[in-house]
Amino acid sequence: MTAYDIIMKKRRGEELSDSEIREIVNGYVDGTVPDYQMSALLMAICFKGMTPAETAALTLAMMNSGDTFTPSEELGALCIDKHSTGGVGDKTTLITAPVCAACGVYVPKMSGRGLGHTGGTIDKLESIPGFRTSLSHNEFIDTVRKAGFSVSGQTGSLVPADKQIYALRNATATVDSIPLICSSIMSKKLATGADGIVLDVKVGDGAFMKDEESAEALSVAMIDAAKILGRKCTAVMTDMDKPLGRAVGNSLEVIEAAEALKGRCPDDLFEVSMTLAAEMLYLAGKGNTDECRAMAENAITSGKAFDTFKAMVGLQGGDTKALEDYSLLGTAKRSLDILSPADGYISHISCEKTGLISLELGAGRKVKDGDIDSTAGIVFNCTVGSCVKKGDILGTLYTSSECDIDSIAEDFSRVFGISQEKPIKKPSVIKIIR
Amino acid sequence: MTAYDIIMKKRRGEELSDSEIREIVNGYVDGTVPDYQMSALLMAICFKGMTPAETAALTLAMMNSGDTFTPSEELGALCIDKHSTGGVGDKTTLITAPVCAACGVYVPKMSGRGLGHTGGTIDKLESIPGFRTSLSHNEFIDTVRKAGFSVSGQTGSLVPADKQIYALRNATATVDSIPLICSSIMSKKLATGADGIVLDVKVGDGAFMKDEESAEALSVAMIDAAKILGRKCTAVMTDMDKPLGRAVGNSLEVIEAAEALKGRCPDDLFEVSMTLAAEMLYLAGKGNTDECRAMAENAITSGKAFDTFKAMVGLQGGDTKALEDYSLLGTAKRSLDILSPADGYISHISCEKTGLISLELGAGRKVKDGDIDSTAGIVFNCTVGSCVKKGDILGTLYTSSECDIDSIAEDFSRVFGISQEKPIKKPSVIKIIR
Repeated sequence: MTAYDIIMKKRRGEELSDSEIREIVNGYVDGTVPDYQMSALLMAICFKGMTPAETAALTLAMMNSGDTFTPSEELGALCIDKHSTGGVGDKTTLITAPVCAACGVYVPKMSGRGLGHTGGTIDKLESIPGFRTSLSHNEFIDTVRKAGFSVSGQTGSLVPADKQIYALRNATATVDSIPLICSSIMSKKLATGADGIVLDVKVGDGAFMKDEESAEALSVAMIDAAKILGRKCTAVMTDMDKPLGRAVGNSLEVIEAAEALKGRCPDDLFEVSMTLAAEMLYLAGKGNTDECRAMAENAITSGKAFDTFKAMVGLQGGDTKALEDYSLLGTAKRSLDILSPADGYISHISCEKTGLISLELGAGRKVKDGDIDSTAGIVFNCTVGSCVKKGDILGTLYTSSECDIDSIAEDFSRVFGISQEKPIKKPSVIKIIR
Repeated sequence: MTAYDIIMKKRRGEELSDSEIREIVNGYVDGTVPDYQMSALLMAICFKGMTPAETAALTLAMMNSGDTFTPSEELGALCIDKHSTGGVGDKTTLITAPVCAACGVYVPKMSGRGLGHTGGTIDKLESIPGFRTSLSHNEFIDTVRKAGFSVSGQTGSLVPADKQIYALRNATATVDSIPLICSSIMSKKLATGADGIVLDVKVGDGAFMKDEESAEALSVAMIDAAKILGRKCTAVMTDMDKPLGRAVGNSLEVIEAAEALKGRCPDDLFEVSMTLAAEMLYLAGKGNTDECRAMAENAITSGKAFDTFKAMVGLQGGDTKALEDYSLLGTAKRSLDILSPADGYISHISCEKTGLISLELGAGRKVKDGDIDSTAGIVFNCTVGSCVKKGDILGTLYTSSECDIDSIAEDFSRVFGISQEKPIKKPSVIKIIR
């Protein structure tokens, strides 16, 4: 079938076959299908959608456009991965991966860098002096074997089809389409070869998915694709209407994660992390869901998870003393406390604005491959529902970058909503879809 | 607004402003908007449509991408044009233009060449020895001034935006969209500058519009665009479920048109031609519709229309004797009669198949700029509703080309449906929309 016929078929709303999808993806990667045909097809997909079988076929075709890995074969044991759709203050990988590893489940995690208002796990870990994320494949597998988990930048040529298609979607207003988002995420996840994947699907103003309905649709699409392609998969929909935990920024989040592993963790971060970790253990067959949850919490209280984290940091060249003496992570040159303008309850903390302010402070990248300030960020001294008095510190801004901290502080004061009534507490974990 | 924002706006189903449409068309023509953004927008238009105001703005932006003409200013009188959406055996321009010119209405007609199964007026006229269709602009206007009408190939750079956009639509399955078809046709029609335009919108198996509903939608869109842009416009929906008239092929159609102008015309061709001519005269303000119809018919019976046709042919270098002695148009090297296999009524003559057979015989172009055999084609000896006996001649194939006439004859026998019941006669003119 020609590219024209495939576009027309999708335009009519008919289901494309596996071979048609493979043909067009391969043709696009090898240059025989031009950009303008691919973008027309992408737009038709935005309008007509894709069936679970089509989405799985697209995911598979994209996955097979580059290198694929089978860590469980190399390690001789089941491997579990975790993926977040991206949020502000989301350091759950730094907690869930050592927790699972401490419970005897391998977590070989290839991770990306951050762009825009959400940070990347790689960037966070690189705030630890000496820590290396550019591992060779053998170093990566070896770290997993020894520590139970590893976080590495992507090695090899992982899903080149996604790089091409994503750039095209970005230029043609075809980003927000469930099957296209799904295939982009899952092709990369499946290429890295985990047997089971727990997806943290963020919902809210700081997330890509703004409402529960679309987040659930994406969750279901990703689970379907994974299952059709023979992997286990669970999606956990979590709240991103406010930042997760109290810290936003690279070294600040490492500190918060280290504290969490030591048993000192804000409620929301604890709940999300333990839920994700329990689901990871459950996919690994470690017991029923209650047992898995207990195992995860026990890995924290026993100190095993922290030890595992420390072992991984050491194996990847990081200074493990920095996980005890946080000053070794570097200190921001400037900081500024933001005070409450009134008495009341914190009714709202704008997640997207927080992310953008963190970016302004230097914690994120405005352009691809831009530099980041690992000390920059925000630490909140309150959360939604906190009772505050006028003059209380709501949060502190940190930066070592050249930026207008006073004007940023003014923006930051608008991040908070203060009301006289105590707001109703929203759950951090919205829904689990298995 | 960026191209991205314009695509997204259309994807959401919002109305684009005149300036946004102008921006994207101009950007596409000057190369700043790449093919892949344009094709994504075109696909979004296929799904979300365009309002009459948007379609008019698109038509105008496309029209202004190249040269535009104002023949009425040059000639000092109202000019009327006629356009057909393309059919098999459609020689109505050769009849309506001299009829109108004979009634004192200027018809400066720029016409295209045929491609695929429908022929172009230019190709038909070029079967007359010596006839020139590549006129300079001055020759064109001069011929109109002297004969009342002229048929010329397109001069100058007429609507380059349409050439580019059409090629892209053709590669991206975005051809069949009412606003896109409308803007493609009307941008060219309006660029040639007529004050009033009569559209012959063909409906049926041999036409681009297969059903009345879509034909009417296109008609309304074209009329709206023309009126918004200050031109008079009428659409006549005519039947193309069977070939128009009895002849299909270039010189064969010139003969049929010459005969029609001499007063010998098959009913369907007469009805369509007189309706179109009357509407053209009506748009020119020559009277009410009944008066215009009478004027048109009178131009035939008085012989004035034929004389006008002959004058135009002579002015464009054609051998006018060929309009009397048809052998001067050349004779096909081979011909083959097709006989009826049974007694009965002709219930159906497949229009699309007839067009394709004519193409096989050499009468049309399979590729752009391909050669054509001006003597090739088909003459029917029956029409839908004719009573035939086994062995009667249903039609005759003509060709001077290297082609397998016997195998074509076999295909041709499948063009006809023969039934025992007399079929209900369908009208040739379906609807007039003013």
